[in-house]
Amino acid sequence: MKKVIVAVLAVSYVIAAGQALRAGQAVDGQPRYTGDMNLVRPTDYREWTFISSGLGMTYTPPSTEAQTQTGPPTFGNVFVTPSSYRSFLQTGKWPDKTVFVLEFRTSGSDASINKAGRFQSDLLSVEAEVKDARFPDGWAFFNFGPAASLQDSAAPLPVSRGCVECHTAHTAVERTFVQFYPTLMDVARRKGTVKPGF
Amino acid sequence: MKKVIVAVLAVSYVIAAGQALRAGQAVDGQPRYTGDMNLVRPTDYREWTFISSGLGMTYTPPSTEAQTQTGPPTFGNVFVTPSSYRSFLQTGKWPDKTVFVLEFRTSGSDASINKAGRFQSDLLSVEAEVKDARFPDGWAFFNFGPAASLQDSAAPLPVSRGCVECHTAHTAVERTFVQFYPTLMDVARRKGTVKPGF
Repeated sequence: MKKVIVAVLAVSYVIAAGQALRAGQAVDGQPRYTGDMNLVRPTDYREWTFISSGLGMTYTPPSTEAQTQTGPPTFGNVFVTPSSYRSFLQTGKWPDKTVFVLEFRTSGSDASINKAGRFQSDLLSVEAEVKDARFPDGWAFFNFGPAASLQDSAAPLPVSRGCVECHTAHTAVERTFVQFYPTLMDVARRKGTVKPGF
Repeated sequence: MKKVIVAVLAVSYVIAAGQALRAGQAVDGQPRYTGDMNLVRPTDYREWTFISSGLGMTYTPPSTEAQTQTGPPTFGNVFVTPSSYRSFLQTGKWPDKTVFVLEFRTSGSDASINKAGRFQSDLLSVEAEVKDARFPDGWAFFNFGPAASLQDSAAPLPVSRGCVECHTAHTAVERTFVQFYPTLMDVARRKGTVKPGF
Protein backbone atom coordinates (compact mmCIF):
# COMPACT_ATOMS: atom_id res chain seq x y z
CA MET A 1 0.00 0.00 0.00
CA LYS A 2 2.73 2.45 0.98
CA LYS A 3 4.71 1.64 -2.16
CA VAL A 4 1.64 2.21 -4.31
CA ILE A 5 1.02 5.57 -2.69
CA VAL A 6 4.63 6.61 -3.12
CA ALA A 7 4.56 5.59 -6.77
CA VAL A 8 1.27 7.42 -7.31
CA LEU A 9 2.68 10.48 -5.54
CA ALA A 10 5.79 10.48 -7.71
CA VAL A 11 3.92 10.06 -10.98
CA SER A 12 1.30 12.62 -10.03
CA TYR A 13 3.99 15.10 -8.99
CA VAL A 14 5.81 14.77 -12.28
CA ILE A 15 2.59 15.14 -14.29
CA ALA A 16 1.46 18.17 -12.30
CA ALA A 17 4.81 19.93 -12.44
CA GLY A 18 5.00 19.24 -16.17
CA GLN A 19 1.51 20.59 -16.70
CA ALA A 20 2.26 23.70 -14.66
CA LEU A 21 5.24 24.33 -16.91
CA ARG A 22 3.34 23.68 -20.13
CA ALA A 23 0.46 25.81 -18.84
CA GLY A 24 2.68 28.79 -19.40
CA GLN A 25 5.28 29.26 -16.72
CA ALA A 26 8.81 30.16 -17.64
CA VAL A 27 11.36 27.63 -16.53
CA ASP A 28 13.38 29.29 -13.86
CA GLY A 29 17.15 29.52 -14.09
CA GLN A 30 19.60 29.19 -11.29
CA PRO A 31 23.12 30.05 -12.40
CA ARG A 32 25.00 27.10 -13.89
CA TYR A 33 28.78 27.07 -13.95
CA THR A 34 31.57 25.23 -15.70
CA GLY A 35 34.98 25.09 -14.06
CA ASP A 36 33.48 26.41 -10.82
CA MET A 37 33.35 30.09 -11.80
CA ASN A 38 32.46 30.29 -15.49
CA LEU A 39 28.81 31.09 -16.02
CA VAL A 40 26.96 29.03 -18.62
CA ARG A 41 25.05 31.43 -20.88
CA PRO A 42 21.32 31.12 -20.18
CA THR A 43 19.45 30.33 -23.39
CA ASP A 44 15.89 30.71 -22.09
CA TYR A 45 16.23 34.22 -20.64
CA ARG A 46 13.66 35.65 -23.05
CA GLU A 47 11.10 33.74 -20.96
CA TRP A 48 12.37 35.24 -17.71
CA THR A 49 10.86 38.37 -16.19
CA PHE A 50 11.59 41.58 -18.10
CA ILE A 51 12.50 44.42 -15.77
CA SER A 52 13.13 47.29 -18.19
CA SER A 53 14.75 48.51 -21.35
CA GLY A 54 16.61 51.63 -22.37
CA LEU A 55 17.69 53.16 -25.67
CA GLY A 56 21.16 54.57 -26.26
CA MET A 57 21.92 54.76 -22.54
CA THR A 58 25.49 55.60 -21.67
CA TYR A 59 27.34 56.35 -18.49
CA THR A 60 29.96 58.53 -20.17
CA PRO A 61 29.22 62.08 -21.32
CA PRO A 62 28.36 62.26 -25.03
CA SER A 63 31.47 64.34 -25.70
CA THR A 64 34.00 61.75 -24.57
CA GLU A 65 35.73 59.45 -27.00
CA ALA A 66 34.41 56.30 -25.34
CA GLN A 67 30.87 57.31 -26.11
CA THR A 68 31.41 57.96 -29.81
CA GLN A 69 29.17 55.55 -31.65
CA THR A 70 28.43 54.86 -35.23
CA GLY A 71 25.18 53.34 -36.40
CA PRO A 72 21.76 53.49 -34.81
CA PRO A 73 21.30 53.73 -31.02
CA THR A 74 21.18 50.46 -29.11
CA PHE A 75 18.35 49.04 -27.03
CA GLY A 76 19.27 47.26 -23.79
CA ASN A 77 16.77 44.78 -22.30
CA VAL A 78 17.17 43.43 -18.78
CA PHE A 79 15.69 40.10 -17.73
CA VAL A 80 15.86 38.43 -14.29
CA THR A 81 15.11 34.94 -13.05
CA PRO A 82 11.35 34.85 -12.32
CA SER A 83 11.65 33.46 -8.77
CA SER A 84 14.09 36.26 -7.91
CA TYR A 85 11.71 38.85 -9.33
CA ARG A 86 8.91 37.53 -7.17
CA SER A 87 11.20 37.47 -4.16
CA PHE A 88 12.13 41.12 -4.81
CA LEU A 89 8.45 42.09 -4.89
CA GLN A 90 8.13 40.60 -1.39
CA THR A 91 11.37 41.88 0.16
CA GLY A 92 12.95 44.61 -1.98
CA LYS A 93 16.15 42.52 -2.05
CA TRP A 94 17.68 40.01 -4.43
CA PRO A 95 18.08 36.45 -3.19
CA ASP A 96 21.35 34.56 -3.61
CA LYS A 97 21.61 32.89 -7.07
CA THR A 98 19.78 35.70 -8.85
CA VAL A 99 20.78 35.99 -12.51
CA PHE A 100 20.26 39.09 -14.65
CA VAL A 101 20.72 39.00 -18.41
CA LEU A 102 21.41 42.23 -20.27
CA GLU A 103 20.67 41.89 -23.95
CA PHE A 104 21.65 44.56 -26.50
CA ARG A 105 19.79 44.96 -29.77
CA THR A 106 20.18 47.35 -32.64
CA SER A 107 17.26 49.63 -33.50
CA GLY A 108 15.36 50.48 -36.64
CA SER A 109 13.06 53.40 -37.42
CA ASP A 110 11.59 53.94 -40.87
CA ALA A 111 10.23 50.49 -41.67
CA SER A 112 6.83 48.99 -42.30
CA ILE A 113 4.17 51.25 -40.86
CA ASN A 114 6.48 52.99 -38.42
CA LYS A 115 7.29 56.62 -39.26
CA ALA A 116 9.34 57.86 -36.31
CA GLY A 117 10.84 56.65 -33.09
CA ARG A 118 12.71 53.36 -32.86
CA PHE A 119 11.90 49.66 -32.58
CA GLN A 120 14.13 46.74 -31.60
CA SER A 121 15.95 44.68 -34.18
CA ASP A 122 18.92 42.28 -34.39
CA LEU A 123 20.73 40.93 -31.35
CA LEU A 124 24.11 42.59 -30.75
CA SER A 125 25.49 41.04 -27.55
CA VAL A 126 24.62 39.35 -24.27
CA GLU A 127 25.96 40.05 -20.78
CA ALA A 128 25.02 38.79 -17.32
CA GLU A 129 25.24 39.76 -13.67
CA VAL A 130 24.93 37.18 -10.91
CA LYS A 131 24.43 37.42 -7.17
CA ASP A 132 26.13 34.36 -5.77
CA ALA A 133 27.96 33.88 -2.47
CA ARG A 134 30.60 31.83 -4.28
CA PHE A 135 32.19 35.07 -5.54
CA PRO A 136 34.37 37.21 -3.24
CA ASP A 137 32.13 40.27 -3.57
CA GLY A 138 28.96 38.17 -3.69
CA TRP A 139 28.36 39.45 -7.22
CA ALA A 140 30.01 38.81 -10.58
CA PHE A 141 29.70 40.12 -14.15
CA PHE A 142 30.03 38.23 -17.42
CA ASN A 143 30.26 39.13 -21.09
CA PHE A 144 29.29 36.45 -23.60
CA GLY A 145 30.49 38.60 -26.47
CA PRO A 146 28.94 39.77 -29.72
CA ALA A 147 25.99 37.95 -31.29
CA ALA A 148 28.05 36.64 -34.20
CA SER A 149 30.32 34.72 -31.83
CA LEU A 150 28.37 34.27 -28.59
CA GLN A 151 30.28 32.23 -26.01
CA ASP A 152 28.53 29.27 -24.37
CA SER A 153 30.12 30.28 -21.08
CA ALA A 154 32.21 33.15 -19.74
CA ALA A 155 34.63 33.79 -16.89
CA PRO A 156 33.80 36.54 -14.37
CA LEU A 157 35.10 39.89 -15.59
CA PRO A 158 38.14 40.99 -13.56
CA VAL A 159 37.71 43.66 -10.89
CA SER A 160 39.92 45.93 -13.00
CA ARG A 161 37.07 46.26 -15.50
CA GLY A 162 35.28 48.40 -12.94
CA CYS A 163 31.93 46.57 -12.97
CA VAL A 164 31.84 45.99 -9.22
CA GLU A 165 33.08 49.51 -8.46
CA CYS A 166 30.45 51.17 -10.65
CA HIS A 167 27.69 48.82 -9.50
CA THR A 168 28.62 49.70 -5.91
CA ALA A 169 28.94 53.48 -6.25
CA HIS A 170 26.00 54.26 -8.52
CA THR A 171 23.26 51.70 -7.93
CA ALA A 172 20.08 52.27 -5.96
CA VAL A 173 19.67 48.76 -4.52
CA GLU A 174 22.52 46.35 -3.77
CA ARG A 175 24.59 46.10 -6.98
CA THR A 176 21.68 46.80 -9.32
CA PHE A 177 20.47 49.89 -11.17
CA VAL A 178 16.96 49.64 -9.76
CA GLN A 179 16.60 53.40 -10.33
CA PHE A 180 16.14 52.50 -14.02
CA TYR A 181 13.56 49.74 -13.28
CA PRO A 182 10.46 51.77 -12.42
CA THR A 183 8.23 48.99 -11.06
CA LEU A 184 11.04 47.72 -8.81
CA MET A 185 12.09 51.19 -7.59
CA ASP A 186 8.60 51.62 -6.15
CA VAL A 187 8.99 48.29 -4.32
CA ALA A 188 12.42 49.21 -2.97
CA ARG A 189 11.10 52.53 -1.64
CA ARG A 190 8.22 50.77 0.12
CA LYS A 191 10.49 48.08 1.57
CA GLY A 192 13.18 50.59 2.61
CA THR A 193 15.94 48.84 0.67
CA VAL A 194 17.15 51.85 -1.32
CA LYS A 195 20.77 52.50 -0.29
CA PRO A 196 21.31 55.28 2.24
CA GLY A 197 22.46 58.39 0.43
CA PHE A 198 21.08 57.39 -2.93
CA MET B 1 -7.77 1.81 -1.72
CA LYS B 2 -9.02 3.64 -4.79
CA LYS B 3 -10.30 6.51 -2.64
CA VAL B 4 -6.96 6.79 -0.90
CA ILE B 5 -5.12 6.91 -4.20
CA VAL B 6 -7.49 9.55 -5.56
CA ALA B 7 -7.03 11.66 -2.42
CA VAL B 8 -3.26 11.25 -2.56
CA LEU B 9 -3.30 12.16 -6.23
CA ALA B 10 -5.31 15.29 -5.60
CA VAL B 11 -3.18 16.49 -2.70
CA SER B 12 0.04 15.70 -4.50
CA TYR B 13 -1.16 17.50 -7.61
CA VAL B 14 -2.01 20.63 -5.68
CA ILE B 15 1.32 20.61 -3.83
CA ALA B 16 3.33 20.05 -7.01
CA ALA B 17 1.50 22.69 -9.00
CA GLY B 18 1.91 25.14 -6.12
CA GLN B 19 5.61 24.39 -5.89
CA ALA B 20 6.05 24.80 -9.62
CA LEU B 21 4.48 28.23 -9.34
CA ARG B 22 6.52 29.27 -6.32
CA ALA B 23 9.67 27.96 -8.00
CA GLY B 24 9.44 30.93 -10.29
CA GLN B 25 6.91 30.48 -13.04
CA ALA B 26 4.62 33.31 -14.00
CA VAL B 27 0.97 32.58 -13.50
CA ASP B 28 -0.55 32.44 -16.93
CA GLY B 29 -3.50 34.58 -17.89
CA GLN B 30 -6.42 33.60 -20.04
CA PRO B 31 -8.67 36.56 -20.85
CA ARG B 32 -11.31 37.23 -18.20
CA TYR B 33 -14.47 39.12 -19.08
CA THR B 34 -17.26 40.92 -17.30
CA GLY B 35 -20.58 41.35 -19.08
CA ASP B 36 -19.48 38.85 -21.73
CA MET B 37 -17.32 41.22 -23.79
CA ASN B 38 -15.55 43.57 -21.39
CA LEU B 39 -11.98 42.51 -20.74
CA VAL B 40 -10.81 42.56 -17.13
CA ARG B 41 -7.48 44.39 -16.99
CA PRO B 42 -4.70 41.89 -16.27
CA THR B 43 -2.72 42.95 -13.21
CA ASP B 44 0.11 40.41 -13.42
CA TYR B 45 1.20 41.13 -17.00
CA ARG B 46 4.65 42.29 -15.91
CA GLU B 47 5.32 38.61 -15.18
CA TRP B 48 4.18 37.55 -18.65
CA THR B 49 6.61 37.14 -21.53
CA PHE B 50 8.08 40.38 -22.86
CA ILE B 51 8.15 40.44 -26.64
CA SER B 52 9.65 43.85 -27.38
CA SER B 53 9.69 47.54 -26.70
CA GLY B 54 9.94 50.66 -28.80
CA LEU B 55 10.61 54.33 -28.11
CA GLY B 56 8.57 57.13 -29.64
CA MET B 57 7.11 54.87 -32.32
CA THR B 58 4.34 56.37 -34.38
CA TYR B 59 2.39 55.31 -37.41
CA THR B 60 1.72 58.84 -38.61
CA PRO B 61 4.41 60.96 -40.32
CA PRO B 62 6.15 63.34 -37.91
CA SER B 63 4.79 66.33 -39.80
CA THR B 64 1.11 65.57 -39.24
CA GLU B 65 -0.85 67.18 -36.48
CA ALA B 66 -1.77 63.87 -34.85
CA GLN B 67 1.85 63.13 -34.21
CA THR B 68 2.66 66.40 -32.48
CA GLN B 69 3.76 65.53 -28.99
CA THR B 70 4.91 67.48 -26.02
CA GLY B 71 7.14 66.02 -23.35
CA PRO B 72 9.67 63.21 -23.60
CA PRO B 73 9.22 60.32 -26.06
CA THR B 74 7.22 57.34 -24.83
CA PHE B 75 8.35 53.75 -24.39
CA GLY B 76 5.91 51.00 -25.37
CA ASN B 77 6.40 47.52 -23.86
CA VAL B 78 4.51 44.51 -25.20
CA PHE B 79 3.84 41.45 -23.03
CA VAL B 80 2.03 38.24 -24.02
CA THR B 81 0.60 35.33 -22.05
CA PRO B 82 3.50 32.89 -21.51
CA SER B 83 1.70 29.79 -22.79
CA SER B 84 0.82 31.66 -26.01
CA TYR B 85 4.44 32.73 -26.41
CA ARG B 86 5.58 29.14 -26.10
CA SER B 87 2.90 28.04 -28.54
CA PHE B 88 4.08 30.66 -31.04
CA LEU B 89 7.64 29.35 -30.79
CA GLN B 90 6.31 25.93 -31.82
CA THR B 91 3.86 26.98 -34.55
CA GLY B 92 4.43 30.61 -35.58
CA LYS B 93 0.74 31.27 -34.81
CA TRP B 94 -1.18 32.62 -31.85
CA PRO B 95 -3.59 30.25 -30.10
CA ASP B 96 -7.14 31.30 -29.26
CA LYS B 97 -7.33 33.20 -25.92
CA THR B 98 -3.96 34.91 -26.40
CA VAL B 99 -3.74 38.23 -24.56
CA PHE B 100 -1.24 40.99 -25.38
CA VAL B 101 -0.73 43.93 -23.05
CA LEU B 102 0.76 47.13 -24.42
CA GLU B 103 2.12 49.33 -21.66
CA PHE B 104 3.26 52.91 -22.26
CA ARG B 105 5.82 54.58 -20.03
CA THR B 106 7.39 57.99 -20.08
CA SER B 107 11.17 58.23 -20.47
CA GLY B 108 13.97 59.99 -18.66
CA SER B 109 17.51 60.79 -19.73
CA ASP B 110 19.87 62.84 -17.60
CA ALA B 111 19.49 61.17 -14.22
CA SER B 112 21.72 59.26 -11.87
CA ILE B 113 24.71 57.91 -13.76
CA ASN B 114 23.04 58.07 -17.17
CA LYS B 115 24.37 60.77 -19.52
CA ALA B 116 22.57 60.17 -22.79
CA GLY B 117 19.90 58.00 -24.31
CA ARG B 118 16.65 57.24 -22.49
CA PHE B 119 15.42 54.92 -19.73
CA GLN B 120 11.87 53.95 -18.78
CA SER B 121 9.99 55.80 -16.09
CA ASP B 122 6.38 56.30 -14.94
CA LEU B 123 3.45 54.34 -16.30
CA LEU B 124 1.30 56.34 -18.75
CA SER B 125 -1.40 53.95 -19.97
CA VAL B 126 -2.33 50.33 -20.57
CA GLU B 127 -3.98 48.75 -23.63
CA ALA B 128 -4.68 45.16 -24.64
CA GLU B 129 -5.29 43.04 -27.71
CA VAL B 130 -7.01 39.66 -27.47
CA LYS B 131 -7.41 36.78 -29.88
CA ASP B 132 -10.69 35.16 -28.94
CA ALA B 133 -13.26 33.44 -31.15
CA ARG B 134 -16.04 35.11 -29.15
CA PHE B 135 -15.43 38.32 -31.13
CA PRO B 136 -16.75 38.70 -34.70
CA ASP B 137 -13.28 39.25 -36.18
CA GLY B 138 -11.67 36.79 -33.75
CA TRP B 139 -9.67 39.69 -32.32
CA ALA B 140 -10.51 42.69 -30.14
CA PHE B 141 -8.72 45.75 -28.78
CA PHE B 142 -9.11 47.45 -25.42
CA ASN B 143 -7.93 50.68 -23.81
CA PHE B 144 -7.84 50.82 -20.02
CA GLY B 145 -7.05 54.50 -20.09
CA PRO B 146 -4.37 56.67 -18.51
CA ALA B 147 -2.41 55.51 -15.46
CA ALA B 148 -4.06 58.06 -13.16
CA SER B 149 -7.49 56.56 -13.83
CA LEU B 150 -6.91 53.01 -15.06
CA GLN B 151 -10.14 51.12 -15.64
CA ASP B 152 -10.56 47.67 -14.06
CA SER B 153 -12.21 46.51 -17.28
CA ALA B 154 -12.84 47.88 -20.75
CA ALA B 155 -15.26 47.28 -23.62
CA PRO B 156 -13.85 46.30 -27.01
CA LEU B 157 -12.95 49.39 -29.04
CA PRO B 158 -15.45 49.92 -31.87
CA VAL B 159 -14.42 48.97 -35.41
CA SER B 160 -14.63 52.67 -36.30
CA ARG B 161 -11.47 53.26 -34.26
CA GLY B 162 -9.54 51.48 -37.01
CA CYS B 163 -7.66 48.99 -34.81
CA VAL B 164 -8.80 45.92 -36.73
CA GLU B 165 -8.29 47.60 -40.10
CA CYS B 166 -4.73 48.69 -39.30
CA HIS B 167 -3.89 45.38 -37.60
CA THR B 168 -5.13 43.62 -40.74
CA ALA B 169 -3.43 45.78 -43.39
CA HIS B 170 -0.03 46.34 -41.81
CA THR B 171 0.84 43.36 -39.62
CA ALA B 172 3.28 40.60 -40.49
CA VAL B 173 1.51 37.72 -38.72
CA GLU B 174 -2.25 37.47 -38.14
CA ARG B 175 -3.29 40.73 -36.43
CA THR B 176 0.07 41.34 -34.74
CA PHE B 177 3.07 43.53 -35.54
CA VAL B 178 5.51 40.64 -35.38
CA GLN B 179 7.82 42.63 -37.70
CA PHE B 180 8.67 44.68 -34.59
CA TYR B 181 9.28 41.58 -32.39
CA PRO B 182 12.64 40.36 -33.65
CA THR B 183 12.78 36.97 -31.91
CA LEU B 184 9.26 36.12 -33.10
CA MET B 185 9.78 37.34 -36.68
CA ASP B 186 12.55 34.75 -37.03
CA VAL B 187 10.13 32.07 -35.83
CA ALA B 188 7.38 33.19 -38.23
CA ARG B 189 9.80 33.09 -41.16
CA ARG B 190 10.89 29.56 -40.27
CA LYS B 191 7.31 28.37 -39.77
CA GLY B 192 6.06 30.09 -42.93
CA THR B 193 3.37 32.09 -41.12
CA VAL B 194 4.35 35.55 -42.38
CA LYS B 195 1.41 36.89 -44.40
CA PRO B 196 1.70 36.59 -48.19
CA GLY B 197 2.73 39.93 -49.61
CA PHE B 198 4.21 41.26 -46.40
